[in-house]
Amino acid sequence: MNKETPLKKIRTKKGIYVLPNLITTASLFCGFYSIIASFQDKFFIAAVTILVALVLDGMDGRIARITNTTSKFGAEYDSLSDVIAFGVAPSLLAYNWAMSLYGKWGWIVAFIFVVCGALRLARYNIQIGIIESKVFNGLPIPAAASVIATTVLFYDYVGMEGKFPSYYLLIFVTMIALLMVSNIKYYSFKDMKLFVRKPFMSFFALVIILILAVAETQIMAFIVFLGYAISGPIWWVIKYSRLLAQRAREKKKNKQQQNPLSGQDKE
Amino acid sequence: MNKETPLKKIRTKKGIYVLPNLITTASLFCGFYSIIASFQDKFFIAAVTILVALVLDGMDGRIARITNTTSKFGAEYDSLSDVIAFGVAPSLLAYNWAMSLYGKWGWIVAFIFVVCGALRLARYNIQIGIIESKVFNGLPIPAAASVIATTVLFYDYVGMEGKFPSYYLLIFVTMIALLMVSNIKYYSFKDMKLFVRKPFMSFFALVIILILAVAETQIMAFIVFLGYAISGPIWWVIKYSRLLAQRAREKKKNKQQQNPLSGQDKE
Repeated sequence: MNKETPLKKIRTKKGIYVLPNLITTASLFCGFYSIIASFQDKFFIAAVTILVALVLDGMDGRIARITNTTSKFGAEYDSLSDVIAFGVAPSLLAYNWAMSLYGKWGWIVAFIFVVCGALRLARYNIQIGIIESKVFNGLPIPAAASVIATTVLFYDYVGMEGKFPSYYLLIFVTMIALLMVSNIKYYSFKDMKLFVRKPFMSFFALVIILILAVAETQIMAFIVFLGYAISGPIWWVIKYSRLLAQRAREKKKNKQQQNPLSGQDKE
Repeated sequence: MNKETPLKKIRTKKGIYVLPNLITTASLFCGFYSIIASFQDKFFIAAVTILVALVLDGMDGRIARITNTTSKFGAEYDSLSDVIAFGVAPSLLAYNWAMSLYGKWGWIVAFIFVVCGALRLARYNIQIGIIESKVFNGLPIPAAASVIATTVLFYDYVGMEGKFPSYYLLIFVTMIALLMVSNIKYYSFKDMKLFVRKPFMSFFALVIILILAVAETQIMAFIVFLGYAISGPIWWVIKYSRLLAQRAREKKKNKQQQNPLSGQDKE
């Protein structure tokens, strides 16, 4: 009788996996701490905590998959943590770092970043399993957050500390935000094979990059994330121009087939 | 051929419903603006925007259901908006309003509120359709946010403006946070029928409450939300004490049945 009390009956507790959700909580904490730090003008800490959240966010899903502890709860919680650590935190970092000097426009651009981040996450969550996973549809929100964080670290490193007013930053943050909700494709690194043989030269290039990353962390991190953000549009332009060239060729072919004498007439 | 270009093939755009998602965006904006306002010590605005977000959040889902425009995208986006407007915003409001004076403990308590809010949302999202909907499992996050917002408005109204240090607030916010993740049941108002006949006196009581709400909005809002937050534990205590009483009665009954002469012996 004791086990069938009405109080216990309505409980639906099944328990949650500790390790992956603990890592998600740590990621959420980094995002939360970043917000407080950026409002205290501690921009370096605010930027670093976002990058720590990025590392943790990369870990939780992988650990859950390896240890076979993936759960619907974990996915939901991870998504809520992401919108804070990679949506709200970097937006407020950019706002406090430089955009607040523009008053209304400062928080409007910061809000655009948050909205685009949330829309990107919501779209990603409903497209899991539907869209091919070799490419990302739009700049992923952790990458967008990292672009902002590494930009702050880069400026801090080259000596432009503290608040600096610049219209460029408003445009820059808006562009990054729009890339998130765009349909531009980004390489997902999911078909990258680290356990196969590679050409000697490409391995050597990787070593050089790693040495530079250790020697000039701030600069390399900035270049890597900005490069990734730009890679999508470049990829798109190359694809689109190839497509246009192909179409032009086909049009010419069709024309020649339709009136095969027209070319000869002119000669 | 034009419609089958590789660029357009990989798109999975199906379009999103404008009105409900626009209301969700407005709710998100309120949450975002509240964060900025609370860091500028504009506590009244920060609290009011959270309550506006509450009204908008109540609208979006209902409008989507009425106009038959519910979508998985809308639900995901709504959830991400909620964690910002009802998790991060009220936590930072409480932090900036009074808790920041306690340094480390201030942001630890603020973080506890955010984590509990995110956990509550993640649990709610995976329990939709599983648990009975007549009651909420734990204090809903919009209600928890409103308790904090109306507390700030109440103190502002009775003249205790600006920052005030109080250990009580740290405990209060922690309690509200823990109520969210608890298994304490809350009335969901989902079986409340507004279109049926009610006794004259209960209608009259409602009118009196509405008049008071207009006359003393801040005080009434504070009482209503705090009352709701307390209603769960009170309900639980009543239920549990009834259960204990019932068990004691049954135990007594069983004892009497096992040795029916024991009572007579003593006489």
